[in-house]
Amino acid sequence: MSILAVGSVAYDTVKTPFGEVEEVLGGSATYFSVAASYFSDVAVVAVVGEDFAERDLQVFRDRGVDVDGLERAKGKTFRWSGEYDFALNDCRTLDTQLNVFGDFKPRLLDKHRDAHFLFLGNISPDLQRSVLRQVRHPKLVVCDTMNFWIEKEFNSLFETLKLVDILIINDGETRQLANEPNLYRAGRKILSWGPKALVIKRGEYGAIMMNTKSIFGAPAFPLEDVFDPTGAGDSFAGGFVGFLAGSQDLSEVGIRKAIVFGSVMASFDVEKFSLDRLKELTFPEVQQRYKEFKQLTHFEDIE
Amino acid sequence: MSILAVGSVAYDTVKTPFGEVEEVLGGSATYFSVAASYFSDVAVVAVVGEDFAERDLQVFRDRGVDVDGLERAKGKTFRWSGEYDFALNDCRTLDTQLNVFGDFKPRLLDKHRDAHFLFLGNISPDLQRSVLRQVRHPKLVVCDTMNFWIEKEFNSLFETLKLVDILIINDGETRQLANEPNLYRAGRKILSWGPKALVIKRGEYGAIMMNTKSIFGAPAFPLEDVFDPTGAGDSFAGGFVGFLAGSQDLSEVGIRKAIVFGSVMASFDVEKFSLDRLKELTFPEVQQRYKEFKQLTHFEDIE
Repeated sequence: MSILAVGSVAYDTVKTPFGEVEEVLGGSATYFSVAASYFSDVAVVAVVGEDFAERDLQVFRDRGVDVDGLERAKGKTFRWSGEYDFALNDCRTLDTQLNVFGDFKPRLLDKHRDAHFLFLGNISPDLQRSVLRQVRHPKLVVCDTMNFWIEKEFNSLFETLKLVDILIINDGETRQLANEPNLYRAGRKILSWGPKALVIKRGEYGAIMMNTKSIFGAPAFPLEDVFDPTGAGDSFAGGFVGFLAGSQDLSEVGIRKAIVFGSVMASFDVEKFSLDRLKELTFPEVQQRYKEFKQLTHFEDIE
Repeated sequence: MSILAVGSVAYDTVKTPFGEVEEVLGGSATYFSVAASYFSDVAVVAVVGEDFAERDLQVFRDRGVDVDGLERAKGKTFRWSGEYDFALNDCRTLDTQLNVFGDFKPRLLDKHRDAHFLFLGNISPDLQRSVLRQVRHPKLVVCDTMNFWIEKEFNSLFETLKLVDILIINDGETRQLANEPNLYRAGRKILSWGPKALVIKRGEYGAIMMNTKSIFGAPAFPLEDVFDPTGAGDSFAGGFVGFLAGSQDLSEVGIRKAIVFGSVMASFDVEKFSLDRLKELTFPEVQQRYKEFKQLTHFEDIE
């Protein structure tokens, strides 16, 4: 088992200008693991309630995701409800019910403690470190976080960041975390705290990778039909970590390719509601879109 | 004479978190022509008042810009005043005094009517067409516009767009002009009205080029010190049209290179107030930054 991913599995109710779905499969660990499954073995560590449906478990199994670490607890599965504006740029959270996720204390199975690639999804930084301590010899630790933890648990997050190889974060959170309006200064400050690289997600504007030596910028894939942005960031992370684990290439060349594969998976995710597009892909489709990214961004050198 | 640029020459008062300048040289034709001058011959058609200083005229002359079409009218030069927010993303216009620019009716000198590359800066679409009618055999017509004309003069702008080869516009204006929230659908709609290509400026997020066959996306150059964004869009246009005129390469390859040179010139512009950085560049500096763009965006193909 190559990647271990900790995060949420949820039922989402989502409204976009193009439609509405109720209580569909979602959650950061779900999008991450299904996206990563196209590149590598992946296991999820998460919690669901007694109401979690067999058909939703099957989504993981169909993609070969190891669900032995998916704990089933008394109570209801995590619920999230949100509504997107007309241009799909802004999402308003209508309701969050943590339910069983509120008491989630990840305890890893022995086999999962040998994971080489660890993805610490968007849970409290204390819990992220508790998971990290349980993994014996991680090769690469990738971490996500959000504004909630930056505001409420900055000191704990700071401790987690010391132990992380790559932080995946959006641009607003980058500025907020570093308390610095210039994105690149903010990134450089965060890099001085521990992470070897920073991957900054910018939604429809693409992604940036910063390390102490270089910066890489990739646009988002141009889509005329964006249906539902839910899960795009987690699908990006899944493609990114999935490619790194599958290729075992942690060089700058590998990391840049991984960012493009992350962008590819995010672009598929948003084409349909829930996991509907992400779960039905073929690997040739994924490779084809990678090649389209190459065409999208290519320009000739000058002599 | 290769490029003819019509637009504004102004005195700007600008406040950013990093400082404040009063009544410094600005205006769309100014930024455009100084940026373009690194690549090609360029002439400006604009109007200034009796108060326009000799030292400001010298900025054009030092860059070899033909100012024979710079009309001097009775009254004061166009004034603009604006203030940028802490993150430099948002600009609030504090004051606009059109002065002599309010009665500007461009009448081209005979020698300027042979221009091959025409840049129609951000003036009324009626005036843009009147300039266009005066140019005998333009090879390439590039046009800028803004929300004001989209709202007030849509029908006239629509007529201008029928005659234009390339429209340069920002992303918000693209959506507004097409009345369509999805950027790529909006772009496709505008392409159906006449322009062969659309160049969409996205500020700190870079630029996109769309034609009926392909899309090209380039990030903005990562800068830790953005001092003053004024003129970035016009400097972009200057680098873009300048490279096309200098290279005479209107192929897709040439247009993609031109967008990167546009991004290069915009990135220099924002490093200092007014034209302070733009006017002092060397061509090797411009080429060096182009190469840095190549490193910024490069990723390997998959087999």
